[in-house]
Amino acid sequence: MTTQTPATPQHRLVIVGGGFGGLETVNYLRNTDIAITLIDQRNHHLFQPLLYQVATSTLATSEIAWPIRHLLRKYKKVKTLLGTVESVDTAARTVVTADGEAIPYDTLVLATGARHAYFGHDDWEPYAPGLKTLEDATTIRRRILTAFEAAEREPDPGRRGEYLTFVIIGGGPTGVEVAGTIADLARDTLKGDFRVIDPATARVILIEGGPRVLSAFSEDMSAYAKQALEKLGVTVHLGNPVTECHADGVEFGGQSLRAKTIIWAAGVQASPAAKWLNAPADRAGRVMVNADLTAPGHPEIFVIGDTATVANGGKGMVPGIAPAAKQQGVHIAKTIKARLAGDQRPRPFTYRHAGDLATIGKRAAVTDFGWIKLKGYMAWWLWGLAHIYFLIGLRNRLAVALSWLWISITGARSARLITQKDAAEEVGVRSHTP
Amino acid sequence: MTTQTPATPQHRLVIVGGGFGGLETVNYLRNTDIAITLIDQRNHHLFQPLLYQVATSTLATSEIAWPIRHLLRKYKKVKTLLGTVESVDTAARTVVTADGEAIPYDTLVLATGARHAYFGHDDWEPYAPGLKTLEDATTIRRRILTAFEAAEREPDPGRRGEYLTFVIIGGGPTGVEVAGTIADLARDTLKGDFRVIDPATARVILIEGGPRVLSAFSEDMSAYAKQALEKLGVTVHLGNPVTECHADGVEFGGQSLRAKTIIWAAGVQASPAAKWLNAPADRAGRVMVNADLTAPGHPEIFVIGDTATVANGGKGMVPGIAPAAKQQGVHIAKTIKARLAGDQRPRPFTYRHAGDLATIGKRAAVTDFGWIKLKGYMAWWLWGLAHIYFLIGLRNRLAVALSWLWISITGARSARLITQKDAAEEVGVRSHTP
Repeated sequence: MTTQTPATPQHRLVIVGGGFGGLETVNYLRNTDIAITLIDQRNHHLFQPLLYQVATSTLATSEIAWPIRHLLRKYKKVKTLLGTVESVDTAARTVVTADGEAIPYDTLVLATGARHAYFGHDDWEPYAPGLKTLEDATTIRRRILTAFEAAEREPDPGRRGEYLTFVIIGGGPTGVEVAGTIADLARDTLKGDFRVIDPATARVILIEGGPRVLSAFSEDMSAYAKQALEKLGVTVHLGNPVTECHADGVEFGGQSLRAKTIIWAAGVQASPAAKWLNAPADRAGRVMVNADLTAPGHPEIFVIGDTATVANGGKGMVPGIAPAAKQQGVHIAKTIKARLAGDQRPRPFTYRHAGDLATIGKRAAVTDFGWIKLKGYMAWWLWGLAHIYFLIGLRNRLAVALSWLWISITGARSARLITQKDAAEEVGVRSHTP
Repeated sequence: MTTQTPATPQHRLVIVGGGFGGLETVNYLRNTDIAITLIDQRNHHLFQPLLYQVATSTLATSEIAWPIRHLLRKYKKVKTLLGTVESVDTAARTVVTADGEAIPYDTLVLATGARHAYFGHDDWEPYAPGLKTLEDATTIRRRILTAFEAAEREPDPGRRGEYLTFVIIGGGPTGVEVAGTIADLARDTLKGDFRVIDPATARVILIEGGPRVLSAFSEDMSAYAKQALEKLGVTVHLGNPVTECHADGVEFGGQSLRAKTIIWAAGVQASPAAKWLNAPADRAGRVMVNADLTAPGHPEIFVIGDTATVANGGKGMVPGIAPAAKQQGVHIAKTIKARLAGDQRPRPFTYRHAGDLATIGKRAAVTDFGWIKLKGYMAWWLWGLAHIYFLIGLRNRLAVALSWLWISITGARSARLITQKDAAEEVGVRSHTP
């Protein structure tokens, strides 16, 4: 028998959330000796930038979501768990799941993302669903398609008009993209499908409380986007936030607008990670992290992506977009690796803004990479190529490219399915609404 | 002013159900002067023969379903309505929908299909979901995938085994196809995705009450199918029907089998058309129609597809499969056209059986066209080509062919999404089951 030196206990890294940030951390550390456990309450990673395309019948759910477990299948040291985290015991250093399991960590990464939020108006949710999960997207898809069906059956012209009115609240990229795609759907995809109504008469109305749409872009890009939306037939209202949402429409700027379909794209609320840590948070619930992305008082806990807020040098805060989450995921992975190699120096995160992109319907987009700004059809192509490039997995790139090509040539959208609920029942219920 | 002869009132044909039979009738009559209204409670036509592939993560929902309205968009005289029919007023000749609308007809076609049925054991449904709609398919998909996730988290080996046991009740084509595909999923697709469990150890058990699987085929084909299933690792139990289903498993032939996932493929029940008409029905609720497919006492009402039962010459009854429904759809369309041309002679329906096909996993199938019987890999190719050929729409043919090619090469299934319910919650709930 030989005497062996006792093995160094393996470092346990627990990552909560399989979004862009969490996956990037796993990816960077996949070949180290660290025992990584990734926990998510969903079995799939979601390519959120294209979620609005599921909501508007352009893409199928499986084209923008992949089982996390499958994405990580080759990393034999990485364990994937389907589970909902309910709290963090920072003293015992464990993550506690909904079914009471306590998972121990040496280092913890909270990358749990955000939900849409109504800021004190949670009662608006039934009337104005938001768009963050696959189920949100199929719900919105069902509502949009069902509204056209109900309009076709509605004998009263006034109420028929309400079914054919679509209100999108919020003029950020999601709101602009949803509004543009609904306009395309009404004027192009559904053309000729109905006998009583003309889908092209549908009104698509975008309401933004601030002075312009796409406020992350320069003013001329915002102006172009507004113009491009109007060319698609979208009415854009600026400067007055919505003050009321109900079953029959919205109120804003002192006026009342009757509409059966309302979509919420106006705000997000971070997951409750700040509460788990009892950490300071901003208005949207994001943990106010240190410059190195650790939680205050907890150097062993990193918070990244939409769950955290951190200053972007002198230029406001780091934006809540996929590239920022990915950069943070890599940054903390490097920090963890450096620490395990004995380098305990704090490593402040620096954000590099690559650019902003947003599409308006299927022919126009705005892109702003700082050194170059593009708008119109060229920008749309650039947007499309960038998104196909970033889609995970060759298979999905092919499938999405095929879907887009098909829609571009024929205008037909294949994913126009009303699912989950009894579609007719919903029409029935809604057409009885007084 | 000239005197005009009064226009002949347009013949009003109402078709309830946009399945294979109903669509075929519309298709045949699309260029006549008949005012056709097609009513369905779903907005989509479903290619049911491939539904099991959605349930087993092979295809996406939008690859096997298409908006009926879009399929019929070019037939300007055809009106599509999304609505649930609740009754038929045969005296007033109207169809009454759930929201109280009465739609008048001169000729009525009931092609409302069937649901899965438990024959006096409706309490089994929560434990053993059936497979007839897209929601059924995503429910079964969620349960199968969630069972593997729960097994990965289950510390107790006994209970882990229960999560890894999949019971399929019913040895018809659906049962055989589901069992074979789950076996493929466990041994091929999920290979390497888990760290605690080995998905290949999953037990897939097919229980058939009769003496053989695929009883519509010849005995040697049934024997081959059983052998092919066993080669894939499926255990086949014959001769004992299931006597009990509960949260923890099934009972059959005096034995008890513990399993967390049970799938029902054993029986169907026709939609309530027989009740609407107060017409004689068989045990499964199918209207016993006249030889010309009209309802007894109602020459103006046709009942076709899974809603009806009719003798197949001297060879039993016409089977409840897509080709039979399509032939009936064309047959009654010809009858309607002949009647409007003044020919009121009864036209008895004659069924031509083209053949039977069933796949066993992704490498084998059995086909029986009477004059030629095939089994094995060649039969699988024939099966694949036949189904791609019958898929409606070039787009879906391409997409499905791409999906199958991809799975055939890589074994990866793209549609492995747990949706609709909170996936983790379900794991939590299920792992707490005593």
